[in-house]
Amino acid sequence: MLAHPICPSFKTSVACRFHVLALLLISLSIENFSAAGDFDVPEVNSTLQDVQGFREKQSCQILKEFRSLLKYPNSTQDRANVLKLAKHLVKEFQQRGVETKLLRLPNANPLIYGELKSPGAKRTLMIYAHYDGQPVVPSRWKHGPWEPVLYSKSMQEGGRQIPWPKPGQKVDPESRIYGRSSSDDKGAIFAILKTLDALKKTNAKRTCNLKFLFDGEEEAGSPNLRRYLENHKQLFDGDLWLFCDGPVHQSGRPTLAFGVRGISSMEITVYGARRNLHSGHYGNWAPNPALNLAKLLSSMKDEKGNVLVEGYYDSVLPISSEENQAIGQIPIIDRELRRKFGLAQTENENELFMKRLLLPSLNIKGFSSGSVGDSARNIIPNTATASLDLRLVKGNDPRRMLQLVEAHIEKQGFHLVRKDPDQRTRLKYSKIAKVISKPSYPAIRTEMDHPLAVKIAQAASLAGNQPVVKLPTLGGSLPLYLFTDYLSQPLVIVPIANFDNNQHAPNENLRIGNLWYGIDLFATIFTME
Amino acid sequence: MLAHPICPSFKTSVACRFHVLALLLISLSIENFSAAGDFDVPEVNSTLQDVQGFREKQSCQILKEFRSLLKYPNSTQDRANVLKLAKHLVKEFQQRGVETKLLRLPNANPLIYGELKSPGAKRTLMIYAHYDGQPVVPSRWKHGPWEPVLYSKSMQEGGRQIPWPKPGQKVDPESRIYGRSSSDDKGAIFAILKTLDALKKTNAKRTCNLKFLFDGEEEAGSPNLRRYLENHKQLFDGDLWLFCDGPVHQSGRPTLAFGVRGISSMEITVYGARRNLHSGHYGNWAPNPALNLAKLLSSMKDEKGNVLVEGYYDSVLPISSEENQAIGQIPIIDRELRRKFGLAQTENENELFMKRLLLPSLNIKGFSSGSVGDSARNIIPNTATASLDLRLVKGNDPRRMLQLVEAHIEKQGFHLVRKDPDQRTRLKYSKIAKVISKPSYPAIRTEMDHPLAVKIAQAASLAGNQPVVKLPTLGGSLPLYLFTDYLSQPLVIVPIANFDNNQHAPNENLRIGNLWYGIDLFATIFTME
Repeated sequence: MLAHPICPSFKTSVACRFHVLALLLISLSIENFSAAGDFDVPEVNSTLQDVQGFREKQSCQILKEFRSLLKYPNSTQDRANVLKLAKHLVKEFQQRGVETKLLRLPNANPLIYGELKSPGAKRTLMIYAHYDGQPVVPSRWKHGPWEPVLYSKSMQEGGRQIPWPKPGQKVDPESRIYGRSSSDDKGAIFAILKTLDALKKTNAKRTCNLKFLFDGEEEAGSPNLRRYLENHKQLFDGDLWLFCDGPVHQSGRPTLAFGVRGISSMEITVYGARRNLHSGHYGNWAPNPALNLAKLLSSMKDEKGNVLVEGYYDSVLPISSEENQAIGQIPIIDRELRRKFGLAQTENENELFMKRLLLPSLNIKGFSSGSVGDSARNIIPNTATASLDLRLVKGNDPRRMLQLVEAHIEKQGFHLVRKDPDQRTRLKYSKIAKVISKPSYPAIRTEMDHPLAVKIAQAASLAGNQPVVKLPTLGGSLPLYLFTDYLSQPLVIVPIANFDNNQHAPNENLRIGNLWYGIDLFATIFTME
Repeated sequence: MLAHPICPSFKTSVACRFHVLALLLISLSIENFSAAGDFDVPEVNSTLQDVQGFREKQSCQILKEFRSLLKYPNSTQDRANVLKLAKHLVKEFQQRGVETKLLRLPNANPLIYGELKSPGAKRTLMIYAHYDGQPVVPSRWKHGPWEPVLYSKSMQEGGRQIPWPKPGQKVDPESRIYGRSSSDDKGAIFAILKTLDALKKTNAKRTCNLKFLFDGEEEAGSPNLRRYLENHKQLFDGDLWLFCDGPVHQSGRPTLAFGVRGISSMEITVYGARRNLHSGHYGNWAPNPALNLAKLLSSMKDEKGNVLVEGYYDSVLPISSEENQAIGQIPIIDRELRRKFGLAQTENENELFMKRLLLPSLNIKGFSSGSVGDSARNIIPNTATASLDLRLVKGNDPRRMLQLVEAHIEKQGFHLVRKDPDQRTRLKYSKIAKVISKPSYPAIRTEMDHPLAVKIAQAASLAGNQPVVKLPTLGGSLPLYLFTDYLSQPLVIVPIANFDNNQHAPNENLRIGNLWYGIDLFATIFTME
């Protein structure tokens, strides 16, 4: 994907571009790649060349520092460790001349705020990233989540663990660093740190003031971000927000996104007997909650993945013609993704991938009842629980969408409760569902032709040495409504991570080439005219 | 239920009987209790009275010894600990004059064999019990599974922990001892040990030779029992087997059973992508295996609990007229059970409970995909797994029943595999199910009028001081086909545990009154004319 990582020996950008494109066409089976109109990559400038030289020479030191950062545990609920990491980051940014401080609220992880002025700055850019991480189940990780290791390529593709580079040694951009938050989202913060080092070392001139906001609760749905912004509204004043989170497009091309999906979640518990029952003594007599929950969930989606909850698609905002045009230029990588993920078929295959992301989803993220495998016992479980997440699109109200699902559950004959049913309730209703609904935040989609955004897109093309992919939305969720709706400021999303980074899952990783891209990208943006 | 525990102060059995019956009618809401014809309880004899006196005086010591036995971990897979327990039991039986030894096979838990001759014995009784226990998930236990505690009554009914009795102190028969295997099945073995002590102490005369077979792998489906019996067939020669496992009837009355269900099990894994995917980036695109498994399981049973797998009921042996008659005399306790378990409704309520047990069941004992609750993450899980158990009735072939379910899975459009699918298989089939089928053993049902069985029934009535409930089958499964089909010997099942013992689940317990019943029962049987 990324110019220099893929073509280290090519010196002419034209040859390199051709090589990259050929590689993409072969290895990704891109089906509909309209390169001509889009192939608008600016020439590499001397600042970028200097920065690239810096990071190539310093690879050993850079990975050593990244490894050290990844060792800080940061599960979003683990406040003590999150705080330690926050203090460490404050120190790191202060050492680079950024006025940095922790903003605090009671019973909340801190928010890191930093400011770096530049003489003669043409603009003020505000940068969002988050330093907390998803919870982990260490037993599911090949190595510990906070014991970073280097692999020759991704584990999934047969990569093997390799030693950390020695001073002066180059690092294959295809290699991966494994560890929680390597891509989501310590990677972006670390790329900024190293960009500041690189610009200082190469005496490059920054053309913008910078403001940093590093969220410590993104993986918990940023429950306090709104209050942080309310309390410190005067700090957050600038020309454009850059949101540094999420992965680049699956084609590997540099990517800008103009929206994100919103999110709500729901946990449903269905009840059998008050305790687990012996499946012999009561099998065929006592109702099985796993079966009843299975039937309930089955009723929510058809075989093609269409949600059957009444009204679920009614509030979806139509796709604009401008967005439709952008969608038409996104490389179609469905077949390649199916191969990569080992899928013969996907939900509703008649629609483009991006169009599926512009619809609200209803996903079972977990289902648990009794036990399976070696710890399975011959019981009729007393409860069955499913966790759902609803990814929302522009137009969907987070609370209303949950209400639609609740109405559906009632239509299936379930009596809804908000806590475990008492004996009276149990004896009154044959089907009981405890529903805990958590509305989070709505989706956003912003205009695709903002002048500064156009410049950022050029910077991304330059740093990635490929035409940028412009996405009307990311599939993932971020609390961006606070910025677009509450602060009324424009934003673009500038992801750097590889798409197959195992975000939110065990064995999260960052492709080294994507770390390089992050440094090159921030260096270009911070110095662009 | 049990004479003396319930009526400690009554000296005339008539009054006691009436009192017991009244209590039952009130507290259990028994709907159809045809007491007249059945109320055939013999007079308490002096041997039984002596034994009861012994156990009342010795309550403190007896519970101390039971507590010590329950501390031995015995999860059936934990061979090292199972072996320690086996050696301990051999010592205990040897100390009571029983010629006891371990029978061994490679890669198997040992079988304990014991023999106790009696001068002038009228018969030889063979006693089966098992000393291994179900696997445990310690975190789900209120106290440790092998840290026995005493409760004033069941936890579910508001019991509280109470101190162990002091010497001379009586123990409320309603109190419960909690610990893995307290009822399933260390309780029966322990009752035998204490019976031998009581008979010795009271100088009672045994009228039978005894042979003991204590299985160490019952909870794993007794995979080696057949080989043990083949290797030592000459040892197992006698007049009747007594199978000491399972709970008494839910009415609390003494119980004999003439059959058990067979069992087979199946584990089904359904596949999504090769790894967990971010539910934002791929939600609405990547198929969700939890949903697909939910749809598959939903297709297997209707809302009334009838199995929809083609041919599932075809091989069921019809209920005989003799069995039908016995069924008619079983107390109907459905309403009471529903109240006890907090169930407004059960599967197919138009049929009697016992008739449901005479049909094969299809039960989801576990369903697992992704995570729920605090550890839920926003992913599309890569797999979903369900564990099923099939309880079989007379006529069902264990292997054939699994084949019917497999055929059903294929009819739902799944490609069946026996191990995790490779990439080629993944890309070829949109729905893949890994099915691991484990046929165990068939059901048995034996004649209800065997002369020795009739005597055992009288002993049970005497010890329990209530008419015995005769069940054509228990709902649970035991490998009894080996005795009825391979050794061609008659058997009756003689359970002692309370029905709400949490068998196979956390917080397993034995009601103290049921331990007393066990001692009284074995004392009566071992000394009957």
